[in-house]
Parts: sequence; C-alpha cells; structure tokens
Amino acid sequence: MTNAPQNVLFIMADQLRWDYLSCYGHPHLHTPNIDRLASKGVRFTNAYVQSPFCGPSRMSTYTGRYCRSHGSTWNGFPLRIGERTMGDHLREVGVQSVIVGKTHMVPDTEGMNWLGIDPKSTIGVQLSECGFTPFERDDGLHPNSGYDGNPDYNGFLREHGINSPNPWDDHANSGLTEDGERKSGWLLKYSNLPADVPEELSETPYMTGRAIDFMEQAGDQPWLCHLSFIKPHWPYIVPAPYHDMYGPEHIIPPVRSDAEKATDHPVYKAYIESRICSTFARDEVRERVIPAYMGLIKQIDDQLGRLFAYMEEKGLMENTMIVVTSDHGDYLGDHWMGEKDLFHDQSVKVPLIIYDPRTKADATRGQVRDDLVEAIDLAPTFLSYFGGTAKPHILEGRNLDPLLHASEAPTEWRDYAISEFDYSTREARKTLGTAENKAQLFMIRDARWKLTYAEGFRPMLFDLETDPQELVDLGKSAEHADVISRLTNALFDWTRQHHSRVTVSKERVEHMSINGEPWGIVIGQWDEAEYEATTGHIFGNWSNP
Amino acid sequence: MTNAPQNVLFIMADQLRWDYLSCYGHPHLHTPNIDRLASKGVRFTNAYVQSPFCGPSRMSTYTGRYCRSHGSTWNGFPLRIGERTMGDHLREVGVQSVIVGKTHMVPDTEGMNWLGIDPKSTIGVQLSECGFTPFERDDGLHPNSGYDGNPDYNGFLREHGINSPNPWDDHANSGLTEDGERKSGWLLKYSNLPADVPEELSETPYMTGRAIDFMEQAGDQPWLCHLSFIKPHWPYIVPAPYHDMYGPEHIIPPVRSDAEKATDHPVYKAYIESRICSTFARDEVRERVIPAYMGLIKQIDDQLGRLFAYMEEKGLMENTMIVVTSDHGDYLGDHWMGEKDLFHDQSVKVPLIIYDPRTKADATRGQVRDDLVEAIDLAPTFLSYFGGTAKPHILEGRNLDPLLHASEAPTEWRDYAISEFDYSTREARKTLGTAENKAQLFMIRDARWKLTYAEGFRPMLFDLETDPQELVDLGKSAEHADVISRLTNALFDWTRQHHSRVTVSKERVEHMSINGEPWGIVIGQWDEAEYEATTGHIFGNWSNP
Repeated sequence: MTNAPQNVLFIMADQLRWDYLSCYGHPHLHTPNIDRLASKGVRFTNAYVQSPFCGPSRMSTYTGRYCRSHGSTWNGFPLRIGERTMGDHLREVGVQSVIVGKTHMVPDTEGMNWLGIDPKSTIGVQLSECGFTPFERDDGLHPNSGYDGNPDYNGFLREHGINSPNPWDDHANSGLTEDGERKSGWLLKYSNLPADVPEELSETPYMTGRAIDFMEQAGDQPWLCHLSFIKPHWPYIVPAPYHDMYGPEHIIPPVRSDAEKATDHPVYKAYIESRICSTFARDEVRERVIPAYMGLIKQIDDQLGRLFAYMEEKGLMENTMIVVTSDHGDYLGDHWMGEKDLFHDQSVKVPLIIYDPRTKADATRGQVRDDLVEAIDLAPTFLSYFGGTAKPHILEGRNLDPLLHASEAPTEWRDYAISEFDYSTREARKTLGTAENKAQLFMIRDARWKLTYAEGFRPMLFDLETDPQELVDLGKSAEHADVISRLTNALFDWTRQHHSRVTVSKERVEHMSINGEPWGIVIGQWDEAEYEATTGHIFGNWSNP
Repeated sequence: MTNAPQNVLFIMADQLRWDYLSCYGHPHLHTPNIDRLASKGVRFTNAYVQSPFCGPSRMSTYTGRYCRSHGSTWNGFPLRIGERTMGDHLREVGVQSVIVGKTHMVPDTEGMNWLGIDPKSTIGVQLSECGFTPFERDDGLHPNSGYDGNPDYNGFLREHGINSPNPWDDHANSGLTEDGERKSGWLLKYSNLPADVPEELSETPYMTGRAIDFMEQAGDQPWLCHLSFIKPHWPYIVPAPYHDMYGPEHIIPPVRSDAEKATDHPVYKAYIESRICSTFARDEVRERVIPAYMGLIKQIDDQLGRLFAYMEEKGLMENTMIVVTSDHGDYLGDHWMGEKDLFHDQSVKVPLIIYDPRTKADATRGQVRDDLVEAIDLAPTFLSYFGGTAKPHILEGRNLDPLLHASEAPTEWRDYAISEFDYSTREARKTLGTAENKAQLFMIRDARWKLTYAEGFRPMLFDLETDPQELVDLGKSAEHADVISRLTNALFDWTRQHHSRVTVSKERVEHMSINGEPWGIVIGQWDEAEYEATTGHIFGNWSNP
C-alpha cells in the first residue's frame, strides 16, 4: 500500500440498513464487492448515526457535530450560517470535496441575505452545497408534483431517448404491469414491478458513472468525493433484472413481538399506531417492498464492483481511502415500525466499512470491530488523513485512526454512543399533544445497554447482551433502576457539555489559563511591591511581557 | 405620555452591584437621578445576568440568548459568526442601534475570513461591533502595556491639553499624591487619590456627552442608543470631588461569615484562596476601593441627571424607553470574594430599571417587581417595542411587556432564572485540576432557592427566604435533598432544550407538522385507493395541493 494519502471516496447509501449486506450477515443478499472492501479494511459493527433521519443525520456527519450542536434537527431545517462541514475544513488543507448525489442540505438563505452573500458566488455555492463543490447534486426525490422537479438526471434520460415531462418519476421510478399499465413506484403495491428504465440508465449506475466522470477529470490535487446514492431509499422500485432477484424465501422474518405491539410507552405506541408504521407492518407490504429493497442494494454492490475495478485500473486503490456507510436504516416492519425515527438498531445503526490505503493500516485489514463509533467520527478522521490539525472545539467526533491502525483495542475510547431525534413535525407529536420544543428523543448506548430518553415520558431500556433483538423493554423495571439512572446521568452530562464554544481552540483556552489577563491588565493588586512579589514583574515596566 | 414609541436609551454600567443605588436600598450612596427614573418606571429586584462576567454576560444580553447558546463563554472568546444581536434584529425593523461605550465583543475574524467578509464593509463593521453602529466604541481598558492603546478618548484629552503617551492611563486613571507623585489607579492602594483629570473630562462625563452628541444628530429615524459606561469597573479611581465624598463610615459591613471561610466546597474554597479574592477580602483594600467605587457610581448618577435633563428639554422623554442596568456586580470582599465569577447576588444580580413612555405603562409607574427576570429579556422587549415579530426560536428571553404594562402579576411567568460560568481560564481551575471542558458552573434559582450546580463537585444551595445573605450553604443537607434534586432536574431540563435550532420559526414547525411531507412525496401508501382514502386526494393529480 502507500504512505501518501491522496484521496477519499466517501460512499453513502440512503436508508441502507446495517444488516442488509452479506458481510454483516444477511443470509440471502450477497454483496461481494462491499464484502471485499471490508476484507481489505475495517468493518464496524456498532456504528451509529446522530439522528435516525436523513437531514439531521447527514448534517451531523458532514459537520462532525451532534444535532443539538448544528441545530438542523429535521429535514428542511436550514443549516445555520457559520456551521462548517467537512468540505469547509478540508478546503483549508488544500483538498477539494465534491458531492456526487445527495446531501439533503437546505441552505440558510436568510443568513446569507443578512451577511450579503450572493448564493451564486463561490462562497455562496459552498454554503448552499453543504461545503462541497457540486459536481452532481441530486437529492433524489423528484415527484411529478413539481417538488425539486428538474434533476440533471432527467436530461441524461432524455438524451438516451426516454422522453416525458419527468422521466425520473414517469420511468425510472415507475413500472409497467404485464398489461402495460404504468404504475408508480411511490405506491408499495407496485414495488415488485421492474422500473421502466434500462438498468444501465437507472439512478445508481448513473450516479456511479458520475463519480467515475469526476475521477477522470480530477487531476493530481487531493480530493474527497462524496458519492451519495439516493437508493435503496424509497421509491422502492428497481429495474430488471434486480426486480425479481429476490422472493418471499429471501425475506428475513420480521423482528417483532406481541408484547411490543401492546407497549404502553406513549411515544412508541403512537408510532406503532401511526399510518406509516402500521402500513409497513403489513405482511403484503413487506413482501412487496423487501425484495425491491434488496434488489436496490444488490445493484449498488454491483455498481461498486464497477467503480472499484475502475479505481484499480487507475491506481486509485493505492492512495484513496474508501468509506461505505449509510445515513440511517429502515425498519421494514420490524418492531411494528416502518421508515426510521426511533432507536432500534434497524433504524439507528448503520454499516461502516473503512478501507485505509496507508501501510500503517496493514495490520488491521479484514478486522471486525465492535467499538462504539459515530457518524461524526468521519469528519475528524478525514481531516487527520489529509494532515489537518485536529479541531476538537468544533468537531465533536473522534479521529478513528487508533481503530484503523491498531490491531489491539485502544486503551481509551468512548463509553457511549448518542443519537437524537426531534419529532416535532411528526404524526406522533400530534397524537401525543407534545409541545413542539419538547418533542425530543435521545438514545444513549454503552457496551451492553441502550436507553431511549423520551422528554416528558418514561425511558425505554434494552439489554443488548441478553436481548440483542431489542424486544424486551426494561424501561419500567425497578431491577434496572441503577442502569437507567447511570445512563440518564451520562446523557445529561453530555447535554451540559459545551456544544457552541466553537471560536476558541482548546490550546487557546489552556494558553489563556496559563497567562491570565492580557499584559498590563492588573487585577486585585495592592501596590507595586505586591505586584512584583506575585508576578515577578516590575509594575509599570511594560516593555518586556 | 405617548403611544408612539420611537427610541430606546439602553444604559449599562459596568460592574455595578444591584444594591449600590439608593432606590435599591443603599443607605449612604444617594442616586436621585436613577431613583427618579425608577419612580417613573418599573424597578426589578430579581434581575439576573446570564453569566457573572463582562464578555459572556454582554453577549447574552445583546444576543438575547444563553451563554450555552451563543458560545462566547469568556472574555475574548469571539462571538461566532451567525449569532445575531439586538442591533441586527432591530435593523430588520428599521431601527438603527448605536453603541456609545463598551461592548466587550470580539469579532469572529476567522469566520469573516472564511465567508469572505471584509471587516471594513458595512456588514463587516456590524459583525465587528456586535450588531451596533459604532458611534463611539470604547471597551474602557487602555493600559500602558499597549493593549487596546489608542481610544478616541485619548484624543479628546489631548485636545483639552492633557498630553502624555497615553492620557487614559497616565491621567484619567492615575492620581497624584500630596507630594505630587503619580500613582496608578490599577493599584488598589491608590484608589483614594483623585484621578489626575478635571472631572468634566473624565470618562463618564465624556461618554455621556457622546450620547448627547448622538441624540443631537440622530434625526427622526427610530434609534436604540446603547450608552455603555466602563465605570464603576476598575481601575477604581475617580476625580475630585467624587474621590473623597465617601469614607469608612459609608462602607457597608462585609457580608461574610467564618463558616464560609471554612467552606469545604472545592470551587468556592479555591476562589476564596485565590490571589484576587484574598486581596479583596482585606479590610485595607475594602477601605480604599469601596469609597472610590461609590464615587464612580455617584458620578454616573450625576451624569444621568445631566442626560435626562437634556432629554426632557428635547422632548425625548416622551418617546424614549430608558433602561438602566449592569453587566454583573462586584463582590468587594463580601463572601471573602473579589471581582465576580460566582453566583452570590453581589455578583450575578443586577439593577434593572425600565422606564416605558407608552401610556399603557402608566399603571405601573413606580412599581417594584420581584419577578425573576433575565438580561436576555431585554432584546425581545426592545424588538416588541419597535413592533418587530417575536422570534422565540432565536431569542431565548421573554418580552417584559406583561410586567411593564400590567399592574398585577402576569398569570404565567418563568419559574427559574439561570446563569452560567465557564471558569476554564481562571486560577481556580488550575488549583482544582479541572479539565477545561468541565470547568462549568450553573446557577438556577426559583422564588425561594438558589442552587449552584458545579460540574464534577457537589452543589451549593441557599434558602433566600431564611438566609437572604446567602451565608448558609445547604448543598450537603440531606434535609434539602428534595429541593436540590428538583432544581437540578429543572436545570438539566433546560440544558436539554433546543439552543441551536435557530433557522426555523415555531410557526414553521407547526406548519410542517400539520402539512406533513412536501406535496407529492408519498410515504407508506399501498395503492391509489389507500392514498385517496387517507389523504382525500387523487393519487397522481398533483395540480391541486
């Protein structure tokens, strides 16, 4: 391998569950290309996102900061001006970070207006594109309602003869029945149909091709390429041959229990009873959706095979760190839930594979690690990779180097992983009548226990050692009062920490603490003699600080 | 009075203790001009700053946000780009806010560089001047070491024939002994000397004159003038005749006990034993400092008499809200402490008098209110005064209108006042060996109790009903475990709140919660019929949202 790190390929799939890859144990979904990357890198089995939802999770991953720090706690909540992302930090060390695909970032146009920043200026584009240089920005949802209606991908489809007002929706995300009737991939009943687009023109190959286009023209300057697939996120529909690669025999049985369905936890109950969750809990829905979901993942794996082959050929495997991860999972009916939002592993845990080309990572190739890692660890890891100075006053994650380079566990690592969820815009809040500023959920998990702290309600607790499927909620168990109290206190410790003291480095704080007041500012000194005795300086002789 | 609010005169004295005004009960220090304002307005007896220290307190007052929200937790910690102040919010409603005096704000030049903002541009100056238009910015400390060495005030003194390299330090803040020897006002032994400057040329009259200069030229546009005196902050030295208006007979006996001195609370003990505090606890220091401190306050009151007379003459009393407050207090040896930092009332409580010219305030003139108010309440009060829309997602304080206009207590008000202190750069941290990111203190007080939560140490608790002087620390009292637990939980509730979700209004959150996903984004719908049944819309008919 190499000692000259040059590039990072940061691959994110959208809504990819941690356990829907063969290297993570899926019995029927074979993902040999991702698995091969894992065999050359480190595979993390306890990687958590900072919010089990697209927007806030991504803003945490990109900024390296918790949701309570960056404040963009929900899809469409603009990232406040002044929050820097990995792209901004890497630009400072001469690295260009490009986006190919989705960020789900909404810019703070009000903040830009205030500061007089033209969104079309260089800095305005950076602020609008989450710190990345937009090579191909595509947030991946382009319904016929007109919402985000004109992706470049539509132009690509039209160039290839697929003409319609919105080929993304009309073709790439619709299917044809045997009778030739066009049916929308937005509706779950039709997830079994093949998308009405040649496979090589569908979104995942297109976006992979765009990443290759970028690498072709990237030149010798170091880069980070964030290849951010919209899939396997819904619309759950995939072109042939992927649409019927998997059938009912490949569907893992749902992880759920009658006791769960009878939960008295108000928030969990409100979710289970919500329209979306009760839909995904239906067997007919699972049977249509899951095979398509698996097909979409299989297609991603195949496309990564294509991309990795290209990189091998170009020598890029020698000097490019490759990360494969996701922004959150998908319940798919497990725990009587659909989508994401809550903190079962199906929702909040993600796959995380890191291939580090440096020779110092040779000792860890193929390792599987169960350390608690967080998505916010990626930004400081990338900054370190490119030789940047650590910024712990801003970047709240941890540089993963010790885990990537040591074959033994590091002596010190984090004790807890934390995630947050703001359900202020969700159906469950209406059901519960929670105030919008109290609609907060927190997860804190340690090596054994996972606690959900629900503002205004009792906690939920799972013993991951005896109950790895998280079926037995111990949140009311008197026997576990100590565990609940310990984790609750640890969570509160964390909320009390500094999350906004971002303009002063820790070194500067130490420096100020050692040096005290600025030179010449004299506090609490009686006279010249006392000043001299306590400071060692002559009062009034200001020439030699 | 009037119904046409036009201006705000926001007067802040620096380090003015709440109880060093005659309207607040000082037996010897008569402040008739401030008292008269109180008789025409509302005087608050429980007004708390959000940090008992200049920089963080002021950044909270100006931004209307807690320290943990704005992140500028210490003097010299730049206010992060993107934090708006009252000046920025008022500018949006057509009000110019000018600063005459001190803000103690350090701009985020790194953030400005990043965003390509020239500090000399219009927005750059606003960002550098804490959102204010600088009419006369003077942070008030200009020692001969060269630190902040050339205030406009020095030019003013030179114009009046006072020539030296730094007349601020050499004359305005130095005194002459009877033998004609020049002694520095930085040293407490010389606080009894008259400052070597004619009274009318000293800082307080100068700054008052500058406020009058502003009003002279202000024109008809609505304005906020922040007249921000550096005094009675140290250097404790005042010109004749104020230097000997007060003697030992006017000094209130120190509020302190032997039990306090023997405290086992690690943080309090470290402070008591620190150099600065042990100096201020000395009788000889109190006897030199306090008369000068009182003289400085008396001078401010006299100057406010001059200013208010000018405003009467110009008709400005009819249409100008006037606020008198401070950024924190001064221990002056009470509780064996000097300076500020901790949460005894001497340090964290401030005077707050609000004169509201509107007729709807007529019913409350001369009222004294003991509601818990916070310095962050001023920004939303000013915004409301000028007719701006409330911004509770940004401004964490409360509009004081209900207290200014009702003659009865409002039915709902805050239950707690909160303050924070980051002692990471202080001597006590070194003594204790606390990690820089754990050097945090919090105060929470309700109608009766005041709790100090000290990160990593036991709390302190005072019963303000039976022990208004805060001499008996109940922080270890088993009998008070319930009170401690209740206040601690309330504090933790507050830390868990959103402090950074500033880009989305509460109305917008409600709107999103009612409207759900953007039009055309379809989640968890089985087929067309189910979509129609649950939404009332025809699937695919996107023309009529």
